[in-house]
Amino acid sequence: MKHIFFAAIAALALCVSCQQQAAQPSALDVIMSRYSVRSYTGEKVTEAQLETLLRAGMAAPSGMNQQPWRFVVVNDPETMDAMTPWGADTWKAAGTVIVVCGKTTMGENNDANPLWEADCAAVTENILLAAKAIGLGAVWNACYPFFQDKTREALGLPEDVTPYSIVPVGVEQGSEQPKDKWDPEKIHRNKW
Amino acid sequence: MKHIFFAAIAALALCVSCQQQAAQPSALDVIMSRYSVRSYTGEKVTEAQLETLLRAGMAAPSGMNQQPWRFVVVNDPETMDAMTPWGADTWKAAGTVIVVCGKTTMGENNDANPLWEADCAAVTENILLAAKAIGLGAVWNACYPFFQDKTREALGLPEDVTPYSIVPVGVEQGSEQPKDKWDPEKIHRNKW
Repeated sequence: MKHIFFAAIAALALCVSCQQQAAQPSALDVIMSRYSVRSYTGEKVTEAQLETLLRAGMAAPSGMNQQPWRFVVVNDPETMDAMTPWGADTWKAAGTVIVVCGKTTMGENNDANPLWEADCAAVTENILLAAKAIGLGAVWNACYPFFQDKTREALGLPEDVTPYSIVPVGVEQGSEQPKDKWDPEKIHRNKW
Repeated sequence: MKHIFFAAIAALALCVSCQQQAAQPSALDVIMSRYSVRSYTGEKVTEAQLETLLRAGMAAPSGMNQQPWRFVVVNDPETMDAMTPWGADTWKAAGTVIVVCGKTTMGENNDANPLWEADCAAVTENILLAAKAIGLGAVWNACYPFFQDKTREALGLPEDVTPYSIVPVGVEQGSEQPKDKWDPEKIHRNKW
């Protein structure tokens, strides 16, 4: 009886530990269920959450291993207003935005890096997925090629750093269903 | 005694079910530990794996909800050779490549879609992460803006569809450690 009792306790302890692991959503679930969040409660992200998002961003692949990403985290509403000609209401509601920027040159001769945009896009997607993974809402706002000069000026960016995307991150107000975008007709085999 | 016995059995059953869930890697683990895979065993991906990767790709966000992504899955070695001026050895070793393409125009007037590249990059990152999540290796090979005309010709793509990235997917030969790219000096607050 004593043995069975200890076995039960051990199984329960193991199970609790499993549950804690299972509480982290799987990568496929996050990828498939992520959607753009544009309504926020106003509760701000914590420094720990922000670091997770930035770590996820910097884990992106990069062409020629240039890691050209740079970040400006903005929570000042006046700065947000100055960054865009289109109104910063969503950003102010979220409370925090991550401006994903790219260093557009590389090497000793400051050659153009043809892949800085691709790298910044990968960073942006990683941040969106990480936000979903930790229960936050976020959305990809394209800055480049629309109003990068205004954002650059508001943030005082150097000439060789271009703001690429602006990602508000916050606590979602309400919830939505992800779009079903699966379309097998978009898949071809060996030839178009 | 009977009750304790049944409790133990129930806890064990629950635990097995938890373990099965936990076997799916978490989103953050996958994002942080993904790396570029260039060595493959030659074992080919299955149709079910391929569908998971393509579903993950199509779950990406897209500017103005254009969903401009198109895919050509290539497993024919001669086609691979014809797609690039740089040699297709890695692709042939993986056995399968996914060519992520973008429709570069939109709407009734065939206006240029300024966000097709960003969308294709998000698709590519999703595919890389999904590959890692299901235990496959993959790497982002930039096609655009380097040799898109050669790939377009080899695949017979329409004029308004541009090949963006080429992602070999397969079973990794060996294993590596992900790069540590975390660099807090790349983070600024409110101003550069």
